[in-house]
Amino acid sequence: MAVGLLPPKEIIAVDGIRLSTCSAGIYQSERDDLLLIDLGNNSNCTAVFTKNAFRAAPVIISEQHLSQSSPRYLIINSGNANAGTGQKGIEDAIDICKEIAKQSGYNAEQVLPFSTGVIGEYLPKENICKIIPSLLESLSKENWLNAAHAIMTTDTIAKAVSKTLTINNTEVTITGIAKGAGMIRPDMATMLAFIATDICINKPILNEMLSDAVNNSFNCISVDGDTSTNDACVLIASGAKQDLEITRRGSYEYQLFSEALNDICIELAQKIVRDGEGASKFVIINVINGYNKQECRDIAYSIADSPLVKTAINASDPNWGRFLAAIGKTGIANLDINRINLFLNDVCIVEHGVRHKDYTEEAGQSAMQLDDITVCVDLNRGDARTTVWSCDLSHEYITINAEYRT
Amino acid sequence: MAVGLLPPKEIIAVDGIRLSTCSAGIYQSERDDLLLIDLGNNSNCTAVFTKNAFRAAPVIISEQHLSQSSPRYLIINSGNANAGTGQKGIEDAIDICKEIAKQSGYNAEQVLPFSTGVIGEYLPKENICKIIPSLLESLSKENWLNAAHAIMTTDTIAKAVSKTLTINNTEVTITGIAKGAGMIRPDMATMLAFIATDICINKPILNEMLSDAVNNSFNCISVDGDTSTNDACVLIASGAKQDLEITRRGSYEYQLFSEALNDICIELAQKIVRDGEGASKFVIINVINGYNKQECRDIAYSIADSPLVKTAINASDPNWGRFLAAIGKTGIANLDINRINLFLNDVCIVEHGVRHKDYTEEAGQSAMQLDDITVCVDLNRGDARTTVWSCDLSHEYITINAEYRT
Repeated sequence: MAVGLLPPKEIIAVDGIRLSTCSAGIYQSERDDLLLIDLGNNSNCTAVFTKNAFRAAPVIISEQHLSQSSPRYLIINSGNANAGTGQKGIEDAIDICKEIAKQSGYNAEQVLPFSTGVIGEYLPKENICKIIPSLLESLSKENWLNAAHAIMTTDTIAKAVSKTLTINNTEVTITGIAKGAGMIRPDMATMLAFIATDICINKPILNEMLSDAVNNSFNCISVDGDTSTNDACVLIASGAKQDLEITRRGSYEYQLFSEALNDICIELAQKIVRDGEGASKFVIINVINGYNKQECRDIAYSIADSPLVKTAINASDPNWGRFLAAIGKTGIANLDINRINLFLNDVCIVEHGVRHKDYTEEAGQSAMQLDDITVCVDLNRGDARTTVWSCDLSHEYITINAEYRT
Repeated sequence: MAVGLLPPKEIIAVDGIRLSTCSAGIYQSERDDLLLIDLGNNSNCTAVFTKNAFRAAPVIISEQHLSQSSPRYLIINSGNANAGTGQKGIEDAIDICKEIAKQSGYNAEQVLPFSTGVIGEYLPKENICKIIPSLLESLSKENWLNAAHAIMTTDTIAKAVSKTLTINNTEVTITGIAKGAGMIRPDMATMLAFIATDICINKPILNEMLSDAVNNSFNCISVDGDTSTNDACVLIASGAKQDLEITRRGSYEYQLFSEALNDICIELAQKIVRDGEGASKFVIINVINGYNKQECRDIAYSIADSPLVKTAINASDPNWGRFLAAIGKTGIANLDINRINLFLNDVCIVEHGVRHKDYTEEAGQSAMQLDDITVCVDLNRGDARTTVWSCDLSHEYITINAEYRT
C-alpha cells in the first residue's frame, strides 16, 4: 500500500559499472537475494554507515576494507542482516569477501559486504560462496532493475532513480537504487543505497558530496523512529568517462553534479517513506522560522515519530492538539506556544497557539483526505528551517511487524 | 483489554477530605464527568505539572493559584482538556474557580482547576457553573470510587489505591486515584492523580515527598512516548489527625510515610500502563549495571518507545535483534555492545552481544507468551540501574487513536 509510488521507469546504465543478481536461498521466498556490483578499473568509491552502536558484521568489515584499499566489488544480500552474530558473523562476512577475491584475482579488502534482513541468524555462507562464480560470469551493465529488486526486504516496490545531465559537453549519468521500508530513521535508516556515476571524481570530493547529499535526504526521513544496524549508502564514480573530472569543491562542475546527486538522494529517500511499512499517507513536515536548525529538526522529528500524530493522520483526523503536544514535548528552551502557527496543506489551523478564528473541521478534514499532506509549523522566532519526510501509522504496520518472523 | 488489572477493591475514605461527582454533559457519553474535592480546613496541598511547553489553561491557572494561596477546592473535569484554547480557555478556567468561590465563600485563588480530554475545544462553562451548587451540597467522604470513575477518559477501568499504616500509634490512611491510558510518557503523562492522607504534613515536606514519589513512579512509565498538555499529580495532607505531624525530612515518620506513598504512586502508575491504550502485555524494563542513571533511563525508554520492539512484544515474538537495535540507537558514548546481556524473564537470550549459546526460540517464545514480561538489559559497565514500565503496541491502539474523535 505504498503512497503514490510507481515502479521505476527507465533506469540508465552507468558506464564502467556492471551488476549481477541471483537467488542464494537467503530470502524467505524464492527470489533473487544476492547482488554483486563490479565497480570496474578506474572507480572511486565512498560510503556512510549507520550510527547505531549495534553495528552488523558487514558494516564493520565494509568500513574497515574501505579504509584499507580501493574497492572493486560490492556484495549485497537481502533476507539476513548478519547482525548480532558476533565473531562468527564477522568471519562469515570476511570469508565471502575472500571467496570473491579468490575467484576474481583481487584482494579480499577490495570487496565490501552489505546485508539486510532478519537480525540474529547466521548467513548461509556456503550457499553464497558456491554461487559466486556464476555471479561473476553474469555481470552486465544492464542489470540495475534486477539489482533494485534483489535488495528489497519488506519493500513492496523496487526503488531506482536515474538522471542525465550535461556538464562541460560531457553527458553525465547518475543512477541509484535503494531499499528500506521499516526501522527507518536516520542516522541512517534500515536502508541500503547504491548510487553510481560514470565520470571521474576523487575520493575526498566524493566523501563531501555524499555526506552533504545524505544529510539532505536519507537523514531527513522517518517511518517509525527506529534506526538500524546495517544501514549504508555508497557513492561510486566509475571513471569511465575520463573527459570529465571533478576535483574542486565549489567549482561549476561540482555545483551541477551535487545538485543532481541531491535530487537523486531525495527522490530515493522519499520513495522509502512512500513505501514505509503500512504507509497510507506521505507526510512532508516543514518547520520554519526557528531559532536554529537543530530545534527545527527536533520538532519535525517529534511530530514525525509521535504515535498519536501518526494515528490521527492515518484516520485523516485534523486532531491538531496532538501536533501541538508533539511540538511542546521537545523540551526546547523558551519555546513560546503563543507564537506558533500550524498549517495542514494551505489550511491555517492554529494561529498564535490557538485555533485560527476561521478554521473549520471541514477544511481540516478535506486537507487530511489527500494522500500527500504537508504539515507546516511556523515557530516565528528566527530564520532557520528544515524538512522531514514521514508517513502515518496504520493497522498494516502492526500486521507487518508483529508477523515479520512468523 | 487491560493487562491483569482488576477494578479497585476497598477504597478507604480519608478524614478531612470530601468529594462529589456529577454529569455536566462534557464527556461524549452520559456519565459523571465533573469532580469536586473539598480539602477541608486544615489541609496542605502540593502538586507537580506537565513539563510539555504546550500547557493547558487549567495547568497554568492551578500552578498560579497554588503559588498564591492555600487551596480549599479542586475541580476536575474529563472529556475536554481546555488546551489550545488561548485566552478564552484561561478565562473559562478562572470563571469556574470564581463561581466555586462565590458559592462557597472562599477566594477564587483557593480553587485549583484540572481538565483532561480532547484538545482544542472550549469548555461548556455555563453547564459547569450551573451544577456547582449541587456539587457543593453532595460532598461526602465516601465518594472516592465515584471520583475515580468521573476522571476517566480512554481508561477502561477506574484506578484507585488505598493503604493504612500505623506511625507512632496513629493509624494513617493514604488513598489515591489516577486516570490515564494514552499519550503517556513523563514528564508527566496524560494523567491526573490525586492522593490524600489524613495526617498533618507541612508544605515543604509535602513538596519533597511528592517529587520523590513521582520520580520513582509516574516518571517511569511509557505507553506511547507522547507527553501531554494537562498532566498533574496532587498530594494533599488533610490535617484531620492532629496527633501526627511530619515536619522533618529523614525522620522516622517521614521514612515510613514516604515508603507507603511511593508504593501508592508506583501502584497507580503501573495501573495506568496496564490499562495502556490497546495494551495486551505489561512490560517491566530493567536496565542494570550502567555507567550512570541517565544512560540506563535513555536505554530503557528507547526500548519502551520503539515501535518495532512494541510490535514484537505484541506478537510474543522474541525478536531480540530489535531490542539490541533499540539499545544501539540511543547514541550513548562508548557503548560496547559486546558487553551486553539481555534477558526476557529468566531466559538469557543475548550474552556479550550475541545470541546465548544455549538459547532456543522455544525458550524465548515461552517467555514472551506471558502477560507480564520482564526485559533485563545488563550493560556490564557500572552499578547504576533503572526500571521503566511499558506495554506493547497493538491493532487496538491504532483503532482507539485513529477513531478517537470520530
